[in-house]
Amino acid sequence: MSKSSQNDSPSDSAGAAVETKNRRSSWLKPSLDWLLIFVAIAIVMRFVPGLYNPTWLFIVSCLAIIPLAGWMGKATEHLAEHLGEGVGGLLNATFGNAAELIIALFALSKGLEGVVKASITGSIIGNLLLVLGLSFLAGGVKFKEQKFNRTAASVTATALTLAAIALLIPSVFHQIAAQVPVAEGGWTPAKEQNLSLAIAVVLVITYGFTLLFSLVTHKKLFIGEAMQGATKKVGHELEQCQDETEETHKEVWSRGKSITVLLVATAFVALISEFLVGAIEQARESLGLTEVFVGVIVVAIIGNAAEHSSAILMAMRNKMDLSLSIALGSSLQIALFVAPVLIFASYLFGRPMNLEFTIPEVVAVVASVLIAQQISSDGESNWVEGVQLLSVYAVLAILFYFLPDVHAAATGVINNVAPAAAHP
Amino acid sequence: MSKSSQNDSPSDSAGAAVETKNRRSSWLKPSLDWLLIFVAIAIVMRFVPGLYNPTWLFIVSCLAIIPLAGWMGKATEHLAEHLGEGVGGLLNATFGNAAELIIALFALSKGLEGVVKASITGSIIGNLLLVLGLSFLAGGVKFKEQKFNRTAASVTATALTLAAIALLIPSVFHQIAAQVPVAEGGWTPAKEQNLSLAIAVVLVITYGFTLLFSLVTHKKLFIGEAMQGATKKVGHELEQCQDETEETHKEVWSRGKSITVLLVATAFVALISEFLVGAIEQARESLGLTEVFVGVIVVAIIGNAAEHSSAILMAMRNKMDLSLSIALGSSLQIALFVAPVLIFASYLFGRPMNLEFTIPEVVAVVASVLIAQQISSDGESNWVEGVQLLSVYAVLAILFYFLPDVHAAATGVINNVAPAAAHP
Amino acid sequence: MSKSSQNDSPSDSAGAAVETKNRRSSWLKPSLDWLLIFVAIAIVMRFVPGLYNPTWLFIVSCLAIIPLAGWMGKATEHLAEHLGEGVGGLLNATFGNAAELIIALFALSKGLEGVVKASITGSIIGNLLLVLGLSFLAGGVKFKEQKFNRTAASVTATALTLAAIALLIPSVFHQIAAQVPVAEGGWTPAKEQNLSLAIAVVLVITYGFTLLFSLVTHKKLFIGEAMQGATKKVGHELEQCQDETEETHKEVWSRGKSITVLLVATAFVALISEFLVGAIEQARESLGLTEVFVGVIVVAIIGNAAEHSSAILMAMRNKMDLSLSIALGSSLQIALFVAPVLIFASYLFGRPMNLEFTIPEVVAVVASVLIAQQISSDGESNWVEGVQLLSVYAVLAILFYFLPDVHAAATGVINNVAPAAAHP
Repeated sequence: MSKSSQNDSPSDSAGAAVETKNRRSSWLKPSLDWLLIFVAIAIVMRFVPGLYNPTWLFIVSCLAIIPLAGWMGKATEHLAEHLGEGVGGLLNATFGNAAELIIALFALSKGLEGVVKASITGSIIGNLLLVLGLSFLAGGVKFKEQKFNRTAASVTATALTLAAIALLIPSVFHQIAAQVPVAEGGWTPAKEQNLSLAIAVVLVITYGFTLLFSLVTHKKLFIGEAMQGATKKVGHELEQCQDETEETHKEVWSRGKSITVLLVATAFVALISEFLVGAIEQARESLGLTEVFVGVIVVAIIGNAAEHSSAILMAMRNKMDLSLSIALGSSLQIALFVAPVLIFASYLFGRPMNLEFTIPEVVAVVASVLIAQQISSDGESNWVEGVQLLSVYAVLAILFYFLPDVHAAATGVINNVAPAAAHP
Repeated sequence: MSKSSQNDSPSDSAGAAVETKNRRSSWLKPSLDWLLIFVAIAIVMRFVPGLYNPTWLFIVSCLAIIPLAGWMGKATEHLAEHLGEGVGGLLNATFGNAAELIIALFALSKGLEGVVKASITGSIIGNLLLVLGLSFLAGGVKFKEQKFNRTAASVTATALTLAAIALLIPSVFHQIAAQVPVAEGGWTPAKEQNLSLAIAVVLVITYGFTLLFSLVTHKKLFIGEAMQGATKKVGHELEQCQDETEETHKEVWSRGKSITVLLVATAFVALISEFLVGAIEQARESLGLTEVFVGVIVVAIIGNAAEHSSAILMAMRNKMDLSLSIALGSSLQIALFVAPVLIFASYLFGRPMNLEFTIPEVVAVVASVLIAQQISSDGESNWVEGVQLLSVYAVLAILFYFLPDVHAAATGVINNVAPAAAHP
Repeated sequence: MSKSSQNDSPSDSAGAAVETKNRRSSWLKPSLDWLLIFVAIAIVMRFVPGLYNPTWLFIVSCLAIIPLAGWMGKATEHLAEHLGEGVGGLLNATFGNAAELIIALFALSKGLEGVVKASITGSIIGNLLLVLGLSFLAGGVKFKEQKFNRTAASVTATALTLAAIALLIPSVFHQIAAQVPVAEGGWTPAKEQNLSLAIAVVLVITYGFTLLFSLVTHKKLFIGEAMQGATKKVGHELEQCQDETEETHKEVWSRGKSITVLLVATAFVALISEFLVGAIEQARESLGLTEVFVGVIVVAIIGNAAEHSSAILMAMRNKMDLSLSIALGSSLQIALFVAPVLIFASYLFGRPMNLEFTIPEVVAVVASVLIAQQISSDGESNWVEGVQLLSVYAVLAILFYFLPDVHAAATGVINNVAPAAAHP
């Protein structure tokens, strides 16, 4: 508890030994920054005429998004330090998944509703199964048993159960309402839209209350007992593991630097997202992948890679409260904030999106939430729980790999309404 | 444990100060008794020819049922005090939802099977989400963290999971059996009926054993640790919060008074239920509400209003064991006792009812049970868990609001059998 | 902890008093060995021409399998003692359900795929609901509250949730893929087969890691606290309750005796399985039972009878860790080891089997896993939890009793593809 050696965050005394140790560790630990080279490659491929190839542009853009998303997150955290705990926490909670949001907005503007929904599904299951699984496995290999605050994990897991129920309802509605003739109140696209909008409003309100709980009324639960009274260190801890290639990892960026980095990184994310979304259709056809697989597995992984590495590093340092808060918190943010915001934003594009997911997507989200809740409810983890989460991810990835492109078809399932006719 | 000051029930010494405090609090706390005026209004509207208007009669009857159901519950509790712990507990456990049962019997006699099933669904989800949610929220605003006996909550939550599985089975049976020609053993109304009857028998037997557990072999679990050795006080506690408008709240009613009040309140509930059920069809059409919405939301709320206020008051006094036992216990009673009794009673009316619920109803019950189990399994609550339960209620209410009237249609879902032809 | 009187396993001093007590108890406790007479009867009925009657042969074979499966298990355990903890544990974990595996292989070779899948379902739900339910009930009647290691139970329960998800996926795949024309990547038997094979590989790998966890890295969790430092006694304990009719229960069989008994018992199980499977079709028709009911209820119970009696005896001695490890462990072995092995073996018979279960089977497995997880997650049990598990078993048995034979039909459900045409 009080052993300072256990805590390798740089404290007030920044002696030469610590400096050397940190510099050395920055070479040993993985960094995503070298992937920034793909930003340049993507720009060249896109604008030098002879080099344009949608499949390669898609792949390169995927790799380029990963470090950019990491820099956006880093700049957001530094900026948050200047804004005080409350507003800073809110900033982190709101823009933590900004890269996914930007990709999804571009996809939405191109009418790729199926990819958007699939990437929402993929972000939720990716964080709950892949990130949490790798964290438990990496941490569990080093530590026999790891403990975390059960109440904090439970509140988030329950909010995820609520989200899973909310995402299930529009599918249930469609399938039942489609059995009734429209004249007698049956399914219409307008009704589906209104139902989705009402549910999105409930989700956003619940997210607001969850933030109030975790940032204001019960914030101690989410920091971890070892950290209590040393809240600031959490920021440093996180920063340290991401800033590894820098030597200046001890100091908080100035407000000006934070904002500049945030703006530049956001601009590049937007640019590369435009490349990525523009190439997606041709790329996936030439790679033989379905829209759903690309959304659920590929887009979801690249958008969350920065969180992935943070959560795993925290688990390897036995900071399970932080690790869980990143993995579960990111899932929650996607389900209760990003998804509703996309619904609201879709009205601006003039193509309202609803919250109706395909049956396999609903099954994947419900299954992931159930098993994550089960595993996190006892306040302790070990390596085999990590293996179990990864196995569920593997099973779902197998399903989405074999599944034909059925976004339109699957939403019309369990009734005889032709899906094409049912949609506007 | 022995601090009498913590326990604000009137103890042996009934000093003037206590008396004054109680009298003052009776004006501050809400009472449902002024709603009794609607009993008179309903009777006038029903029998004075020019005043008859089904929509208004329905609304007034709804409001009139609320205090009558409260008086039935109060009289049952006083009578139980005279009968000793065992028989008294049984009486409470059996007649606690008598008002709902009476409304449902009238609806059954009029052939409103859809309303009956919807009100069973609504009572289960209303107690689990609305009552428990408001209790956690009201209690959590006053107390940072509230504790309750995990074992008692778990046993009840598990019994509810069993009930959810049991209510899901007839729908599964219908959908699978309907794919086989009748000649080869396919779906027939008689088979559905026998299956439902067999499941109802299992449910009632399980309810009997659950009562044996909670009233006899493990009764201490259900009283709450602070109450141990002072079982009698529980009755007073509950009584106190309901008897607020009376000044005689310290004394238990005589056996004669209890029986008289019970009979009079029951007679009025029967009368008003008759009005309510008679007006339901015309009223819901003029209000533009579906049968399912009226059953799930309206009938369920009015039938349970008295329990609602008790559970919330208990939570505000930090008596979470009592609050949970009211909310979860009432759900359990509906699922394991009222529902089977209605199946058995339906044979007396010559129109056997089965246990087959629509898909949205099954989804609502399963989702409510899952999230209530998740929230109550850790033995502690806070305000955001209340918000989460209320959000799920909001999402389900939105579903039932948008859903067209599909009771007949939905039961025939996922197969090509015309529902009208499939039912007798 | 150190009270030796609490532990009724024969310790180092084997005095006359202990000897007498054990001999006496061997008459009082139930034994399945007298059922061995049915082995002889089955052989006579099968080979004496005038006595052949498929219905009676089926019944007699069922009864004959029970003690033989018990002897196979016993010999495996004795052999395991000679092989050291690691290899011995692996042997138990791999051949613990060898009798079920042999019956299933015979059924598979006769093309009775429906019976095989139903018996997998039945073994999972039988262990989780019937065995665990009877154990909790029998133990709970003697002891007010029984405790067990929550972490060990959770890891197994989570692995079962993973298995339930894995068994659900092929049905989801079929129903969605069947809506897409084959030309556009729709459902084909080959795809279903590949999907099943991929999932089976994931399951077997996960089983391997689960064994590594329970036998190597975290084995102390699975032994029970009272047993720590006395691992060997566990074997004796188990042996004692099964060897009751013998007087030599204190000594481990020689390696030669173990192997001989194992081979002889296996040979007889194979012989009787051949009778049983050969008579199954005619028997179930004359008894009016469906293929699914025979598989889920009858075959599952006879194959697991030996485990049933061990688990219940352990619970009555308040050794809940052992009781749970038998019941949950046996379910897990069926789901993560026997099921995939049957998929792999089916290729040898030239009739590849897939992992697609009917909807009622999937519902039964998911419901059983959910309620077993719920009940075992708190680390304590009582008699009413046993009743609740048995009630769920009763409800599912009622469903399978009423359900017409729909194995082929149900897999093609929720789409318009004729099942007969969809299968090869």
